[in-house]
Amino acid sequence: MSRIILASASPRRRELLTQAGLAYTVLPACGEEVITGTYPAEVVEGLSRQKGEEVWRKISGEEFFTQNRETVVVIGADTVVSYKEKILGKPKDHTDACRTIYMLQGQTHQVYTGVTLLWKREDGESGSVVFHECTEVNVYPMSQEEIAAYVQTGEPDDKAGSYGIQGKFAVYVKEIHGDYNNVVGLPVARVYQEMKNHHLM
Amino acid sequence: MSRIILASASPRRRELLTQAGLAYTVLPACGEEVITGTYPAEVVEGLSRQKGEEVWRKISGEEFFTQNRETVVVIGADTVVSYKEKILGKPKDHTDACRTIYMLQGQTHQVYTGVTLLWKREDGESGSVVFHECTEVNVYPMSQEEIAAYVQTGEPDDKAGSYGIQGKFAVYVKEIHGDYNNVVGLPVARVYQEMKNHHLM
Repeated sequence: MSRIILASASPRRRELLTQAGLAYTVLPACGEEVITGTYPAEVVEGLSRQKGEEVWRKISGEEFFTQNRETVVVIGADTVVSYKEKILGKPKDHTDACRTIYMLQGQTHQVYTGVTLLWKREDGESGSVVFHECTEVNVYPMSQEEIAAYVQTGEPDDKAGSYGIQGKFAVYVKEIHGDYNNVVGLPVARVYQEMKNHHLM
Repeated sequence: MSRIILASASPRRRELLTQAGLAYTVLPACGEEVITGTYPAEVVEGLSRQKGEEVWRKISGEEFFTQNRETVVVIGADTVVSYKEKILGKPKDHTDACRTIYMLQGQTHQVYTGVTLLWKREDGESGSVVFHECTEVNVYPMSQEEIAAYVQTGEPDDKAGSYGIQGKFAVYVKEIHGDYNNVVGLPVARVYQEMKNHHLM
């Protein structure tokens, strides 16, 4: 087994790794995020790399890192919700959340998660890979009352795009095309496949 | 609020209703299931109707039912996994589970859930609707070792198609097209929308 370090404090990402049966430790990146790029795919890849590299620097002096006794993998990730190529951030307040959900209801939007894996194998060889997954999400039409009631639950408060697909918003999601867990916050399947392809497990 | 009765003992269906914020009680159907129809969509619709109607008959003498004081809704559901129009049931043993997963890996298959809603409104008027949702699931290629290790976890034992998308199998699911919760066992979004359209909530 390799030592997996998740460079994110997101409880949803933690749950996804646990669900997938991958053991990990958490060491959140806390530096300022600098947006580079214009398109959602570029933005999430860039932010995931910043998070991953910050944690990589933090651990590079640690004993487990310098002694080459095990494979070490750092996972950086960033998720954005995008509608018509415009990135929708976390809501400023409930009015903002209502506005965002009103825009998404009855329509199809995209969720992008960028992931950076940085690793050093037992033999001391290091490497990295950056990728993203995009999932299309189609939302049922919603009434103003439904939007207001959903925002009142508080679920949108800390979420990109003002909704949580794995929560009460589930009843408004008609269909998706792509990886479901990518919408939750981490494409665990792609992460696992990349780790396998790069002989990290 | 209406009184929702889930005609299924499946813990996954219960979790989905809870997650969606719908209050319900459980009264599982236990009669023999008689498969009618040839195609997966017909089969799951037929089985969901049998389950729903069995529970409908059970409750029709109860006081809450006869007194017309609240809307009562019974939900019957049945899920099958289908590959090339052939229905894959629950595995007989671990060898059978390995065989099924070997067939699904590297390919796209379908998951059908049929749902029957039977209701009686406060005014005494009753009705029903039967529908199904189909979700396409694309699985990454898997090695014999991965298949054997997954089957060893015991997760496939009680599951149609020998896998649980919400469990450790998540790392092998490349993408889906349709409703994710439909694969878990109940298309809660469609259930909610149908209840809304038929003024059951």
